[in-house]
Amino acid sequence: MSYSQRIARVRERMDEAGVDVVLLSVGADLPYLTGYEAMPLERLTMLVLPRRGDAKLVVAQLEAPRVTPQPDFEVVPWSEPGDPIALVASMVGSAKQVAIGDQTWAGFALDLQRALPSAEFRRASRIVGAVRAVKDADEVEALRAAGAAVDTVAADMRARPFAGRTELDVHRELVDRMLELGHQHANFAIVGAADHAASPHHEPGARVIRDGDVVLCDFGGTMDGYCSDITRMFHVGEPSTEVRDTYAVLQDAQEAGVRAAQVGTPCEAVDAAARSIIAGAGFGEQFIHRTGHGIGVEAHEDPYIVAGNTDPLVAGNAFSVEPGIYLAGRFGLRLEDIVVATAAGPERLNHADRGIAVVG
Amino acid sequence: MSYSQRIARVRERMDEAGVDVVLLSVGADLPYLTGYEAMPLERLTMLVLPRRGDAKLVVAQLEAPRVTPQPDFEVVPWSEPGDPIALVASMVGSAKQVAIGDQTWAGFALDLQRALPSAEFRRASRIVGAVRAVKDADEVEALRAAGAAVDTVAADMRARPFAGRTELDVHRELVDRMLELGHQHANFAIVGAADHAASPHHEPGARVIRDGDVVLCDFGGTMDGYCSDITRMFHVGEPSTEVRDTYAVLQDAQEAGVRAAQVGTPCEAVDAAARSIIAGAGFGEQFIHRTGHGIGVEAHEDPYIVAGNTDPLVAGNAFSVEPGIYLAGRFGLRLEDIVVATAAGPERLNHADRGIAVVG
Repeated sequence: MSYSQRIARVRERMDEAGVDVVLLSVGADLPYLTGYEAMPLERLTMLVLPRRGDAKLVVAQLEAPRVTPQPDFEVVPWSEPGDPIALVASMVGSAKQVAIGDQTWAGFALDLQRALPSAEFRRASRIVGAVRAVKDADEVEALRAAGAAVDTVAADMRARPFAGRTELDVHRELVDRMLELGHQHANFAIVGAADHAASPHHEPGARVIRDGDVVLCDFGGTMDGYCSDITRMFHVGEPSTEVRDTYAVLQDAQEAGVRAAQVGTPCEAVDAAARSIIAGAGFGEQFIHRTGHGIGVEAHEDPYIVAGNTDPLVAGNAFSVEPGIYLAGRFGLRLEDIVVATAAGPERLNHADRGIAVVG
Repeated sequence: MSYSQRIARVRERMDEAGVDVVLLSVGADLPYLTGYEAMPLERLTMLVLPRRGDAKLVVAQLEAPRVTPQPDFEVVPWSEPGDPIALVASMVGSAKQVAIGDQTWAGFALDLQRALPSAEFRRASRIVGAVRAVKDADEVEALRAAGAAVDTVAADMRARPFAGRTELDVHRELVDRMLELGHQHANFAIVGAADHAASPHHEPGARVIRDGDVVLCDFGGTMDGYCSDITRMFHVGEPSTEVRDTYAVLQDAQEAGVRAAQVGTPCEAVDAAARSIIAGAGFGEQFIHRTGHGIGVEAHEDPYIVAGNTDPLVAGNAFSVEPGIYLAGRFGLRLEDIVVATAAGPERLNHADRGIAVVG
């Protein structure tokens, strides 16, 4: 879809939601609609997108040369010291229902509220996020390619040594391999050994991986504008029966989550499908996060696969299915694939071996 | 200063400003006060710091193991799906004057406003930013060390070849050298050749640097938690009389800006001191940004050296003095040092040769 088509979709959603103007600043919404990413600075950059009429991109004069002009918006530079808030407010005018990008700096949101006292502000994610959540064929292909690259990294790691290396060393290898295989950015590479694997967002450190350790590797990056995200488990030497049995529960749960991801199924039902298996095996308290998150131009975006999200899946939704079981102080396990909901059923975008890799 | 001392300073400012509670999420305020940096994710992390009573750090359960406990706050984990907004709102209670971190995601700020309809929200930068803006001796020493590292990079570049290399290649060298010389992160490295130097925030690209080109290099990073930022000019072969003369104006302006940076002088007067010299030489319209920004744990922070900022400099303020002259389509020039205001007068933290480096 072109930027113009995306903007047209956003305007359809504005009509449905009764939103008069969308205001976008830092974050992924702006580049998704315009190709321009705002610098995360104290100088305001803001797209003013009315339901009808011309869109305007307000940007500091010294950053304006970075903008590639598009037919869909006019660039309106402001000079320092200047008053970009007043400029945006004048463009919003008497519009009443204003949707502002969720990641906009709160300081700017407060300033705009003061400058537009009769406007009502809401999150733009219900508008732009909903459009971004439905991937077209090109976007799915980009996600597939990014997924294939991290699949290769995961597969190759099965033949690599782990014992005697630090978590940070394995982390660096994951980062290097993602870049080598076509990613422009490595967004994260969690490596957690033994009890560190029980901290879902563990930051890899100086811990030396030893014989008998389980090692959780969760890594992803951005390739040609779209994100990858995969989790696979490694074990130095043969896992214990306890680890094997717990992992079998997890693998069943992940499979159930993926199977549940049919078009029309509420997001929370996918979460429940995976969670009920883990809870049924007695590990309900040890699955301490939602089952997944949408993925696309951002590593986390709509739709969220979480209790309370009653939105039904639609064809083109792409998201992770990543249940985990975390035994604090002992070990943790997680298994994650990216899945796309299609009319023909759920399609996994990751295909690397899902079994625990026994490594040296 | 310890975290406890910093929090005590923030509370003094809260007293002065009549703020009942400070709410901090993503951005540098939180790690400055607690050592913990919030993950920039859709899961809310928020420090609730009342003027009196215990501070609480609300964090997702799966991220809680990342927090290093401190005596100054209690960690309050929340589990998904959960309602962290309601949790924070219950902690704010009937507090009326709420200051929220400027970089907090607007989506969370809107949710909190809805949950706390009688509270009045304002930017926390007038509270925490004002504390951060006054560096103690240890912080100045950290800024000095980071400055010395980029001075070395700038000095070494004078002996390096430029002609025939792309901007991106020089960019990479700057990044590598900063890391080699002790920086943990390279935050940016602008390299703009010829007319690209007239775009102050040019993104280095495939442009090949040629004989006769002016090359603007503006680079900085983070070393042991504190930022560096320096701009120096290079020229392939002898500069023209026009470039030399224009640069002489710029150098006078930068010198005037530094000299004006006395304790008690309003920030805007430092801007005016540099600007008046450039305007006097007929380049007023070509100096399209403020004279500088504060620097510390963030590359840009209070105090801003800009028209309209009447705050007087205080001892311990650290900031850039970086006037520029930009001739669109032709060339651009900028000269930047970090300066600390002290009782004994302004102290430059950068000492690399300020003349245009003639390179091959």
